[in-house]
Amino acid sequence: MTTAYPVTNRNRLRRRHERGHYDHATVHAILDAAMICHIAYVIDGQPFCTPTSFWREGERLYWHGSSASRMTRAQADGLPVCLTVTHHDAVVVARSGFHHSVNYRCVMAYGRARAVTDPQAKLRAVDAFIDRFYPGRAAALRPPTEQEVKAITIVGMEIDDAAAKIRSTGVADEEEDYATPVWCAVLPLRTVVGAPEECPRQLPGVTPDTSGMTGFAPGRRFDEVMLESYRAAYPT
Amino acid sequence: MTTAYPVTNRNRLRRRHERGHYDHATVHAILDAAMICHIAYVIDGQPFCTPTSFWREGERLYWHGSSASRMTRAQADGLPVCLTVTHHDAVVVARSGFHHSVNYRCVMAYGRARAVTDPQAKLRAVDAFIDRFYPGRAAALRPPTEQEVKAITIVGMEIDDAAAKIRSTGVADEEEDYATPVWCAVLPLRTVVGAPEECPRQLPGVTPDTSGMTGFAPGRRFDEVMLESYRAAYPT
Repeated sequence: MTTAYPVTNRNRLRRRHERGHYDHATVHAILDAAMICHIAYVIDGQPFCTPTSFWREGERLYWHGSSASRMTRAQADGLPVCLTVTHHDAVVVARSGFHHSVNYRCVMAYGRARAVTDPQAKLRAVDAFIDRFYPGRAAALRPPTEQEVKAITIVGMEIDDAAAKIRSTGVADEEEDYATPVWCAVLPLRTVVGAPEECPRQLPGVTPDTSGMTGFAPGRRFDEVMLESYRAAYPT
Repeated sequence: MTTAYPVTNRNRLRRRHERGHYDHATVHAILDAAMICHIAYVIDGQPFCTPTSFWREGERLYWHGSSASRMTRAQADGLPVCLTVTHHDAVVVARSGFHHSVNYRCVMAYGRARAVTDPQAKLRAVDAFIDRFYPGRAAALRPPTEQEVKAITIVGMEIDDAAAKIRSTGVADEEEDYATPVWCAVLPLRTVVGAPEECPRQLPGVTPDTSGMTGFAPGRRFDEVMLESYRAAYPT
């Protein structure tokens, strides 16, 4: 069964319809391959665009911030937000300026932000935030203190509607331009994990695989590590 | 002489003051190392967060879109926006959930968006958009047609105020937690250029270096390529 988000006035692609996707599977795969999103929200008529880490649980998205932050305080009680995730996959250079492009996978998700106030749900979310990125790691850490939990606000949002937009094709020029003698290509971009810079106070004998970090092998694509850790943390 | 943005109610960091920077040099270096930004703007009370490519000229930021797009039409005449650039440089895993973090360089820039309507300025901007990323490439392309120029809207924004926020340090745990036997590290992330997928209709004899593409050598860091091309296009 394919489930999809409703197509509304705000998530409907106005042009380039072939790049649009509204099905849950496509939207979720883009979200779950990311750690960082950008959130648009409005305070006193002023738009803000704040980057933060986030994760998904079913049709809910979660992020967090200091309880003292302007963003989390403003978002505590139903503020409309647009949460966007973008993977920049390539630059595409063509024979006319007009057809220069980029390949990307992005999702814009709409809903209303609310702080997680139930103490049990908040404690669970604080652990989920760790385990979603580093499966099993929360159990290896000491539990958060009461003061730490108080200092953090977890914000959640039900996805009311969302759209994915994807460009993943090659150079596309006007037919008459192919005779222009200019070098054209898709130049792929990949975000990869580097060699770990271990904490100078590392205890002897502790290893990545006893701490939920097996996925982060140097040279791996970060989006693949994120998708893998997501699926380990939330098996279907 | 150090010049800096005014510190206002909207750009002032509320916490983690040590991560904040308001000087032009720091803000510009983060902007100029990027191709993609996220822009927050509001239409009928609904915030949107749209990824797009952009560039800087002095204290002005420019981006573009289809003249038919909702974003560019809404932004034509003074709409307040927040333009954000984020480089995600590392994940930082610590001995408590609370001290897990990410290293990043980000800029939030505020201003009012306006379409570039002067025909000469618009033509110049259309070329600048190519040359900023691929220095000298616009001259190798055929000029844009009248119809193409009409189909594109170039939006510009004077930076009224802006703030950079940077975390670039290592694992920072509570003193009593260093005895916790869990593996901790900074795991660097790098976005790198891959091997080009050349256009299947490439003309014989054309090369990257005759087409403004010398910087995109496979394996190079994309942020470094962007900063280098920026400085070639806008020498100081």
